[in-house]
Amino acid sequence: MITVYSDAHLQHTGLKEMDGNGWREAVESPERASNVIRVIRERLLGEVIKPKSFADNKLLRIHDADYLQFLQSAWNEWVAQGNTADNARPFAFVGAGMRHADGRSIHSRLGRYSFDADSPIVAGSWNAIRSSAEVALTAAELIISGEDRAFAACRPPGHHATANYCGGYCYLNNAALAAQSLRDSGMRRIAIVDVDYHHGNGTQTLFYRRSDILTVSLHADPADEYPYFLGFSDELGEGDGEGKNLNFPMPFSTDWKTYSGALQQGLTQVSAFAPDAIVVPLGLDTFTDDPIANFALQQDDYLRMGEMISALQVPVLAVLEGGYSVDHIGDNCANFLEGLEMGGV
Amino acid sequence: MITVYSDAHLQHTGLKEMDGNGWREAVESPERASNVIRVIRERLLGEVIKPKSFADNKLLRIHDADYLQFLQSAWNEWVAQGNTADNARPFAFVGAGMRHADGRSIHSRLGRYSFDADSPIVAGSWNAIRSSAEVALTAAELIISGEDRAFAACRPPGHHATANYCGGYCYLNNAALAAQSLRDSGMRRIAIVDVDYHHGNGTQTLFYRRSDILTVSLHADPADEYPYFLGFSDELGEGDGEGKNLNFPMPFSTDWKTYSGALQQGLTQVSAFAPDAIVVPLGLDTFTDDPIANFALQQDDYLRMGEMISALQVPVLAVLEGGYSVDHIGDNCANFLEGLEMGGV
Repeated sequence: MITVYSDAHLQHTGLKEMDGNGWREAVESPERASNVIRVIRERLLGEVIKPKSFADNKLLRIHDADYLQFLQSAWNEWVAQGNTADNARPFAFVGAGMRHADGRSIHSRLGRYSFDADSPIVAGSWNAIRSSAEVALTAAELIISGEDRAFAACRPPGHHATANYCGGYCYLNNAALAAQSLRDSGMRRIAIVDVDYHHGNGTQTLFYRRSDILTVSLHADPADEYPYFLGFSDELGEGDGEGKNLNFPMPFSTDWKTYSGALQQGLTQVSAFAPDAIVVPLGLDTFTDDPIANFALQQDDYLRMGEMISALQVPVLAVLEGGYSVDHIGDNCANFLEGLEMGGV
Repeated sequence: MITVYSDAHLQHTGLKEMDGNGWREAVESPERASNVIRVIRERLLGEVIKPKSFADNKLLRIHDADYLQFLQSAWNEWVAQGNTADNARPFAFVGAGMRHADGRSIHSRLGRYSFDADSPIVAGSWNAIRSSAEVALTAAELIISGEDRAFAACRPPGHHATANYCGGYCYLNNAALAAQSLRDSGMRRIAIVDVDYHHGNGTQTLFYRRSDILTVSLHADPADEYPYFLGFSDELGEGDGEGKNLNFPMPFSTDWKTYSGALQQGLTQVSAFAPDAIVVPLGLDTFTDDPIANFALQQDDYLRMGEMISALQVPVLAVLEGGYSVDHIGDNCANFLEGLEMGGV
């Protein structure tokens, strides 16, 4: 399987965040993607190639023009307006009854285009963000050109981002861009199977009214876990998308037995949808030792997860999302990819 | 003029916040209200009395029951769920297309009931918040009982809070509670004249569809300044409230000449409304040396501001809101109150 990867993500570094225990270094670190690539190379999982460049119109298939402009200029605006903190981050958001107003202040723009305070922007962020999207788009082109498996080693991740706001360490929705690119190539139905520990709220929102893209997400119950305000089981799609969104919220401590049952249910729906390709937002934060998550999957479970998806006999594009156990993310990811190679079209 | 004040606000202390220059002690400090009271006593502006107690039904006239329950229990939930930071604060919010979902996690509940990350809750917050509301309600009863002037030395402030979310250091909307109490006493029309540097988004939202309460706010243009997403001049009220909301957004560096012109326009509308009483959310952060604001009012200007409002010959209840120059807030506040006493009914 070919992996697409770019070192540009290293420029998105020095990130900080707040949690219930205070102010700290962000867990979404460059070492995550670097370790994934190191293990893929060590385990000889296949060629690692660099992404191609893509014009803005590819990004505009999913994201709004004003949002792209914001992401590109936010750091320079932050500095130009006299802010000295080394992470640009919002503190005020668009509350209920408020307006998505077009402000001059970078604090206004950060709040308008974010739904959380923990998706900071630093000097090198835009290069990394754009490159991450191009990694996913390049991997999609591999599938379009006939590969039956491809892996986009994206960083920053993407599945929490919508058309016009970032959150959860995500800025552009890499998996959604890839899915749309597959559609634009002539494929008629795409299934997205999001196995990140956190609900893929951005992806759900983007495709909620579409019948051509089935979105399935397995994740921690949002009543307990981020993103808190989307990802419940009664969210089934709307309009043309009615019945084309499936959420499997699960309790803390979920292990492979429970998880695999939900995954099998989701995959049965995917199979009935008869997709031309599957995109897997691949989070490894379901791992038992993940520092910010509370599921209990073991290392070998990722092999089985890959095998189950592979058994559908449909082309699969895996897109790296979360996973914060830096010591284990590489092996867990490689296990999944090995499982994915066991089947194949 | 009688001032209502409670030391309970001292329990809302040790607050921290984030701004463009990093993580720091919050400017919304106990010293603010303490200095206001010290100067009022030094300048012999009148009796300082303690607030009465009020039953929950007085708070429920403005705020939702679930929100009150949240404010009351948030700190204990924060601790019980293993969070060790000394300020409970949200990091994730309800983005566009998300649900105001009822979560078990305190992180979910903080995000659902807030629109910014800088309105922290500490162990003593609820006592201070409730007491601040009772200060305003007690002052309202002075007006109801025939006083023509009263001052509620509230802390924490209130004008950014809506029925069900906090923000901008505000939790319960003290001025709105007072205005509603005046209405409930039989007064038919109440005007609110918000002179805080920041738009009173909570008050506007609460009364936006009501014809019995005219809301006027003079403030920094939200395109440049917090709260960013409300407070523009085209927000005129809706339904029964059409024409009963007036915003005067002004640019950075606004001085008394510009400010007093806008205030006179607002007061002309207030006069035409023929209110039975006026509530003034009194922020002193329009002061030239305020550390987080950018207007240029001088100390004597607050005397004139009080005089202009006093000249309407209507009972006036002033409610303390923002103002972060601890060294000057007391004198600026006392100047306003002295101006207010010059006229009178």
